[in-house]
Amino acid sequence: MKPLSSLGLKFQNGQLSALDQTLLPHEEKWIDCRDPAHMVEMIQRLAVRGAPLIGVAAALAIARFAETGATKDAILLAAKKLRAARPTAVNLMAAMDRVVFSRDPSLLTADEMVREAEAIFEEDNILCRQMSERAAHLVNEGDNIITHCNTGGLVTTGIGTALGVIRLAHEQKKKIHVYVDETRPLLQGARLTTWELAKLGIPHTLICDNMAASLMGLGKVQKVFVGADRIARNGDFANKIGTYSLAVVAHHHKVPFYVVAPHTTFDAACPSGREIQIEQRGPDEVRAGKSPEQCAVWNPAFDVTPRTLISGIVLDDRMI
Amino acid sequence: MKPLSSLGLKFQNGQLSALDQTLLPHEEKWIDCRDPAHMVEMIQRLAVRGAPLIGVAAALAIARFAETGATKDAILLAAKKLRAARPTAVNLMAAMDRVVFSRDPSLLTADEMVREAEAIFEEDNILCRQMSERAAHLVNEGDNIITHCNTGGLVTTGIGTALGVIRLAHEQKKKIHVYVDETRPLLQGARLTTWELAKLGIPHTLICDNMAASLMGLGKVQKVFVGADRIARNGDFANKIGTYSLAVVAHHHKVPFYVVAPHTTFDAACPSGREIQIEQRGPDEVRAGKSPEQCAVWNPAFDVTPRTLISGIVLDDRMI
Repeated sequence: MKPLSSLGLKFQNGQLSALDQTLLPHEEKWIDCRDPAHMVEMIQRLAVRGAPLIGVAAALAIARFAETGATKDAILLAAKKLRAARPTAVNLMAAMDRVVFSRDPSLLTADEMVREAEAIFEEDNILCRQMSERAAHLVNEGDNIITHCNTGGLVTTGIGTALGVIRLAHEQKKKIHVYVDETRPLLQGARLTTWELAKLGIPHTLICDNMAASLMGLGKVQKVFVGADRIARNGDFANKIGTYSLAVVAHHHKVPFYVVAPHTTFDAACPSGREIQIEQRGPDEVRAGKSPEQCAVWNPAFDVTPRTLISGIVLDDRMI
Repeated sequence: MKPLSSLGLKFQNGQLSALDQTLLPHEEKWIDCRDPAHMVEMIQRLAVRGAPLIGVAAALAIARFAETGATKDAILLAAKKLRAARPTAVNLMAAMDRVVFSRDPSLLTADEMVREAEAIFEEDNILCRQMSERAAHLVNEGDNIITHCNTGGLVTTGIGTALGVIRLAHEQKKKIHVYVDETRPLLQGARLTTWELAKLGIPHTLICDNMAASLMGLGKVQKVFVGADRIARNGDFANKIGTYSLAVVAHHHKVPFYVVAPHTTFDAACPSGREIQIEQRGPDEVRAGKSPEQCAVWNPAFDVTPRTLISGIVLDDRMI
């Protein structure tokens, strides 16, 4: 496999490594991936996260596994486990299908798998640019933009999805300000989006998720841009928990709300949001050492927003 | 002053003490109040919090100060500082006016101030019972109820406001379940409401604030009950940040939304929500050691919800 490098993932000197996103912004620690099982673990504990990136990372992990001489049986088993590491983002399943399961197992070669994984890595970068260029005209001079979770360079091999649009608008010299939803419970906004925006020099202000409606009520928000983990055929989409709430309050305040994602997030096999499986995660993510230890918790990692609530979905190849 | 005791405030053996609410639920530590300036500090750092309780606590602090021989000038100055300790909850101003500023300063006696403070303490307990009884018929058998922030025994001298209604419904043997908004940034729901509900044996589940809309979308919420920090003449009200967002999503899902408060929270001098001053608090409450250290933050402690978005306001003496 050739050398590859993005903000959160790299392959260099024969070693696949990922930036541990659970430690940002205070520590920038790269973790060497030992094998596909290790990548499953990193994806499940969110060291490697974000719909596009977990697909790319899984593809690289399985290709590298093949390249270093794993048997076909071991590859198929490892790919199956990677494919099931998280249930909501379709990019992970799509990447595993493309590298492994769409092929005749008897004809599966390490060379082909490596080429396919490299292609996925490189294409993701191009898709970011394409969707951002398609969506950039939606950002006006002076816009205050709310974004949720983290959708930037950390979760893609390029400039990002929703955050890619914001970055491109900034590069186009539009004067913008970003209000960053902290994104409870795991604070991807507070920890990661603020970190990326600071690196890029884009003006931003951190808010709690429950403040977005107040900002809108005060007339301080002109647009919302978010990413997606899976888009159903009818345009309903799953994204980080809190997205649906944000869409409802944006709709109430008539604030335009856009989803930005690669076409690999679109799942034509999924008729509507009702069919999207939502991952439930452990209670300690919400308790966070603050609430009574035995307190019952409801902790869905994602929610589903109906297409009817939002203004548009911008993919790299079309708008829906 | 005679002995007085509630869940979070007591006067015993000549000493006024408050349960430090910043340390709950992990530590139950009572702090002896040295003087009115100490009470200002406790109110400002939220060791003593909640609209009704800060009024009662300020009244007791100033009455005790008078009782122990403070001069009239010292009393007036201390009362002025207590009255300004926090700007949004009107109960604090109302209590200081009742004990001190509504009287002719030349006729101000320690005895009168003590009697007035004792009356405020005892009335608050009665008001809780009255508003809860007035609102209890709004709770139906089998209801799943969302509540925000903490409005129970900790913030009153009785059973609470919104949480008092929930407690009374539970005592009436209605089968209910409470979804507790964690209430970022200071987690009064996650830390305090869960603690109170566990003590009372009322079934509950903790959620992040951004999950309330999803719960409603799934049809799992029948009612919302919240408290208030100030109710304007037209029925707009200020309450803990996140209340407005919750009201918007409840309205969208046609979930009935009730405010429960004592009449002391109603501010007839305030025409509408626009005139309510909203306290801005420090950035570290939101950063919480998780985000980049210099990250800009918007941190209003409260928001304003228009009367048009909600189903009703239940006071102890009437419904509006």
